Amino acid sequence: MITTIRNTDIEQFDKHFRTNFINSLTGFKSVALVGTKNQAGKTNLAIFSQIIHVGANPALLGILFRPHTVPRHTLENILDTHAFTVNHIAASFVAQAHHTSARWDVSEFEACGLAPQYSENFSAPYVQQATIKIGMRLVERKGIEINHTILIIGSIEEVILPETVVADDGFVDLEAAGTVTCSGLDTYHTTSKIARFDYAKPDRHPSIIS
Amino acid sequence: MITTIRNTDIEQFDKHFRTNFINSLTGFKSVALVGTKNQAGKTNLAIFSQIIHVGANPALLGILFRPHTVPRHTLENILDTHAFTVNHIAASFVAQAHHTSARWDVSEFEACGLAPQYSENFSAPYVQQATIKIGMRLVERKGIEINHTILIIGSIEEVILPETVVADDGFVDLEAAGTVTCSGLDTYHTTSKIARFDYAKPDRHPSIIS
Repeated sequence: MITTIRNTDIEQFDKHFRTNFINSLTGFKSVALVGTKNQAGKTNLAIFSQIIHVGANPALLGILFRPHTVPRHTLENILDTHAFTVNHIAASFVAQAHHTSARWDVSEFEACGLAPQYSENFSAPYVQQATIKIGMRLVERKGIEINHTILIIGSIEEVILPETVVADDGFVDLEAAGTVTCSGLDTYHTTSKIARFDYAKPDRHPSIIS
Repeated sequence: MITTIRNTDIEQFDKHFRTNFINSLTGFKSVALVGTKNQAGKTNLAIFSQIIHVGANPALLGILFRPHTVPRHTLENILDTHAFTVNHIAASFVAQAHHTSARWDVSEFEACGLAPQYSENFSAPYVQQATIKIGMRLVERKGIEINHTILIIGSIEEVILPETVVADDGFVDLEAAGTVTCSGLDTYHTTSKIARFDYAKPDRHPSIIS
């Protein structure tokens, strides 16, 4: 049975129902652990699924943060230190990754059994367990007026990953790296490739290249 | 062999290699077909993977568009008409969906074998083949200074989907709906659920709820 849910219905939903429903609607999401340090050197690790590709040249990605009205350690640390890491999540530590979303007083690294790892070029902590690790530097902050969320755009300063997951044309095989995706607020999934298609042109149907 | 790729390396990459590489780094992405109409009534359909959840109350999602320097029909139609649709992609029409990214003179609906569908409340065309269809209204436009991309934020006006994919708590079972995810610029994947976890708290490990 196909149903049409109108915005007036959505406004009437119970808060918990609405949060689950709307968070599901963008489809499967990028999900990663964001590592930061405050100015006193205390580490923080938090799971985010509002991550977006912003550009390849310069190499940029964005993370959307909820309003800055309650303590948001990750956002504060990024604004203070300009450094953060984005660490892909694998199935082997997905429960620990989810656990970082609890309200911790101590560092989530210690609390959730994830080990910080440092590169010589970079102050923010990586997640040792992550197969793909990205070091980021803050370049732009954009306030969204309608709901006071904050889009943080960072430049990609370094990428630490196995050589074997990078194809000859630069494509990164996320399945080979064990990267997971998420849906809604709390559900994690592995993936299975349907097809990689060639560059689309009007004069022919897409061909599968791998 | 773990390798570290620095920003100076990324700048030296061949353009095609860099585009593939950086587009892979955000992890698996939300991917959907965005349907619009211009003021003359001509339909347009385009595939986007820079889609982000912006908020649940009000219900908002965002799409990042490349710079407005060459014709961007979807962006122009949204700015002109304020209406667009977001249609989840299933494995059964993933090649047609990819084909919308070619440069078409005619409407991508006709060119790619996807049928427009209209709701009585909404001017923009949905994709008949899509299991989950979302009607959106433009509410905010945000320019990103560093690379002149444009974040379009829309409010969710209506959602058309099978009742059976919505759980009692509002969670939408995207796997049951057949929604796919993508990686890089051209690779599509089905998913397989690892676990849905309960709300994370510091005093206990996450429990699997389904």
